[in-house]
Amino acid sequence: MTFQVYDTTLRDGAQREGLSYSVVDKLAVARLLDEFGVGFIEGGWPGAVPKDTEFFRRARTELDLRHALLVAFGATRRAGVAVTGDPQVRALLDAETPAVTLVAKADLRHVERALRTTGAENLAMVQDTVAYLVAEGRRVFVDGEHFFDGYRQDPAYAAAVVETALAAGAEVMVLCDTNGGMLPSQVTAAITDLTARLGVGPERLGIHCQNDTACAVANTVAAVEAGVRHFQGTANGYGERPGNADLFAVVANLQLKLGLPVLPAGCLEQMVRVSHAIAEIANIAPDTHQAYVGAAAFAHKAGLHASAIKVDPLLYNHVDPSVVGNDMRILVTEMAGRASVELKSRELGLDLAGHPETLSRVTRRVKELEAGGWSFEAADASFELLVRSELPEGAPARPFALESYRVLVEHREDGSVMSEATVKIRVRGERVIATAEGNGPVNALDEALRVGLVRHYPELREFELADYKVRILDGSSGTDAVTRVLLETADGAGRDWTTVGVHPNVVEASWHALVDAMTYGLARARV
Amino acid sequence: MTFQVYDTTLRDGAQREGLSYSVVDKLAVARLLDEFGVGFIEGGWPGAVPKDTEFFRRARTELDLRHALLVAFGATRRAGVAVTGDPQVRALLDAETPAVTLVAKADLRHVERALRTTGAENLAMVQDTVAYLVAEGRRVFVDGEHFFDGYRQDPAYAAAVVETALAAGAEVMVLCDTNGGMLPSQVTAAITDLTARLGVGPERLGIHCQNDTACAVANTVAAVEAGVRHFQGTANGYGERPGNADLFAVVANLQLKLGLPVLPAGCLEQMVRVSHAIAEIANIAPDTHQAYVGAAAFAHKAGLHASAIKVDPLLYNHVDPSVVGNDMRILVTEMAGRASVELKSRELGLDLAGHPETLSRVTRRVKELEAGGWSFEAADASFELLVRSELPEGAPARPFALESYRVLVEHREDGSVMSEATVKIRVRGERVIATAEGNGPVNALDEALRVGLVRHYPELREFELADYKVRILDGSSGTDAVTRVLLETADGAGRDWTTVGVHPNVVEASWHALVDAMTYGLARARV
Repeated sequence: MTFQVYDTTLRDGAQREGLSYSVVDKLAVARLLDEFGVGFIEGGWPGAVPKDTEFFRRARTELDLRHALLVAFGATRRAGVAVTGDPQVRALLDAETPAVTLVAKADLRHVERALRTTGAENLAMVQDTVAYLVAEGRRVFVDGEHFFDGYRQDPAYAAAVVETALAAGAEVMVLCDTNGGMLPSQVTAAITDLTARLGVGPERLGIHCQNDTACAVANTVAAVEAGVRHFQGTANGYGERPGNADLFAVVANLQLKLGLPVLPAGCLEQMVRVSHAIAEIANIAPDTHQAYVGAAAFAHKAGLHASAIKVDPLLYNHVDPSVVGNDMRILVTEMAGRASVELKSRELGLDLAGHPETLSRVTRRVKELEAGGWSFEAADASFELLVRSELPEGAPARPFALESYRVLVEHREDGSVMSEATVKIRVRGERVIATAEGNGPVNALDEALRVGLVRHYPELREFELADYKVRILDGSSGTDAVTRVLLETADGAGRDWTTVGVHPNVVEASWHALVDAMTYGLARARV
Repeated sequence: MTFQVYDTTLRDGAQREGLSYSVVDKLAVARLLDEFGVGFIEGGWPGAVPKDTEFFRRARTELDLRHALLVAFGATRRAGVAVTGDPQVRALLDAETPAVTLVAKADLRHVERALRTTGAENLAMVQDTVAYLVAEGRRVFVDGEHFFDGYRQDPAYAAAVVETALAAGAEVMVLCDTNGGMLPSQVTAAITDLTARLGVGPERLGIHCQNDTACAVANTVAAVEAGVRHFQGTANGYGERPGNADLFAVVANLQLKLGLPVLPAGCLEQMVRVSHAIAEIANIAPDTHQAYVGAAAFAHKAGLHASAIKVDPLLYNHVDPSVVGNDMRILVTEMAGRASVELKSRELGLDLAGHPETLSRVTRRVKELEAGGWSFEAADASFELLVRSELPEGAPARPFALESYRVLVEHREDGSVMSEATVKIRVRGERVIATAEGNGPVNALDEALRVGLVRHYPELREFELADYKVRILDGSSGTDAVTRVLLETADGAGRDWTTVGVHPNVVEASWHALVDAMTYGLARARV
């Protein structure tokens, strides 16, 4: 029994309020979803959204997916036009994906009031578009928009849409709870009734749930229990309104609770890493309390049963946290901190098992820094520098010593905006003063530092700022808040590393991250 | 058919990581829960937690509840001691609540390994404690801790705990999914099997679910569908690990989806207000995407939908937002067209229906700006200024004209970091030069602008930067990327507004948002 794990983070999930991916973001998310082992990645709506058209174009050369197939999303042909004459359908073919998902209205009220056409023409639109794309060699999925509301209102018509799509050659007809109002028992009843009515097996059906009743995950699981094999969701449940079904919770429930093998071997353990990495790209703080993947998902507060947890951890965890790449924390005890610091160090090739006192010092430093807003989860390079500084051999030497810097941003009378930075540093005993301009204060500072260092460290020329993220940590106090900067630097050889800086002043926070980035990169270049 | 809506926000919900209520907080939360119409409020564990002992003492004189009864939570007597000699049981009586909830272990493994006693003694502890409290005139509920895991492991023993509690006089035996590992179909099966095994009606049972599978709400609803009348949950789902069942979603689902009258008339409409007020007291930012109560719970983004939402809002909302005290919002985004611009404008009290050409111009401007990285979906104030600028009467005049500004950030030799800004502006014909320091470049700029304007606009003194968000839009080019700044400003009167600025230079982007914030706030203050 094979399942179709269908991710729509990049299309329906991008409907989340306040979320906006660049094309590069979308490519990075697609790579992560592939590492998680999903079977299908719905990349966007080519033709309708220019950014998505470009995504599919670049994906052809820049994405090398191991598990997933790319899917282009679009609508059935417009009413009253030939499918061959519909530019939106043309754009779906031009995306050159092996599979296409078409949205079709399955609720007659929406057909008449929103689409402003007849039920018959809507069926013809489904028939024509599916048949055309199948003839063009595409695997075709059909999203039955508002299916469940439509089925409640007019079961005969909603069923006709399903029947038409499947008869025209659709591989799977996806039943969508577009408004998100369903409960699991209602999903089960509708699927049972529909399959009986049409004499179609549930394996020809798919499920797509929104979370407006806080039941999207349960509704999806209920559909699979009813025999559906194709299920859609998004990373961390991102999506419009309360969001979509959280694909991570759905997959973990199916695999760990129902014993259904929905992912390739070795993928489930990637869940926490992929979940947090996608949150970083979306620039949304990871939800500490998210099921399975949250930092607190297996955290036990001192209380009723804390004492007994040590006796037998599995009596207090619904699953072994490690199977999803998470770990158990017992709050208010040092043990957990030590354990994860040791684990993370080992990941970086630094075995602290033999140095208990070093481990204690590093753990204390990390806890102090994290209390101040630092976060090393995404900043491996800064973390490694911190750990090494506590080891006998010490951290790699800073390539320079700072005397002072000055950054100037001017909005001039002519409306032009200028950024200029001057750094005064000591490099190998020599005092260097360097000035550079940039298109922003941090860029100018970065440029000035390079100018000052490059004669002594020519390999700097290869370094490039790959990504720069800013998060204000205590929004409630506005710009008084502490600012955390994450800096991703890449060298010519396709290696990259991330550093972190925290300070009330965004420029100083960025400076810390810049210095770590140069220090780490240069030490590495010399290895 | 009457239901017992049982809230444990103040006891189990307080196990949430990082949450800590004062006694005054607990009294305020209890009042809010009563306004929401819950039947029972579990206030804490007297005797075990000093704060809770005081809560019950003060509650007697300071709480005047209309709907709810207070419940004291505690454990069955300790093993091997007489119930009359157990100070913890004594403390339950001293709390002087009409009802008491006792936690009893329902999983034999926990009895033996954590409680370190025998299955028989555990049953005796349940029998003795329930009978004693009932004899003392208390209504008694029993929480069967780890019931579902225990029932899977050793159904006979778990059933014996239930049978013992009910025989001893417990009003309801609550089945607890303490580790939160259940799915709805498993909850239904266990309840059906248990009631058949004991010949007990499900109305004698209760349900308490944790959210570790992201199914707590669905599991609770499934139990009610199986005949359970007593259900427990917490406000906003606060609780240990991923939390408890969100009582708001549970109640709304039962009342609006299954038509079960679980709350007194007029209470459901209090949901959003109560949810947000409790979040304030808990000092947790309300979850924008929370089902039913989130600010985005009924927010629509896709242009695809927006055109039709105009026609018939209820086709796009799973319930009427007003029945839970929420309302519908339309987001303006890159995918949206004329329809959502028109709807959004109407929300802001600007009817563009009569001005088709204005609507076209605004829509074009919005699309151009959003192609350049602007986003108005969270920035209502900037959007309103944009729309008004296209209207005959025009936008409110800028309170000043900028000549130039200069921002300086210095990291000095002594390690101190200084930010200073100077603005040169014209205010009502007068040329003003103002300088101020800040803890960052944007804060300094904000301060300097206030210094320059405050003599002409004293109401500025009331304005305060409430939140500041930075998003780098094209991460691939590092600090070369375009920066989007969202600024939330609040006045003294509890009103706030959000503005947006976009520019390659974070300082200039912030400047745009600052100017919009001042312009909008001052125009509003004069209305």
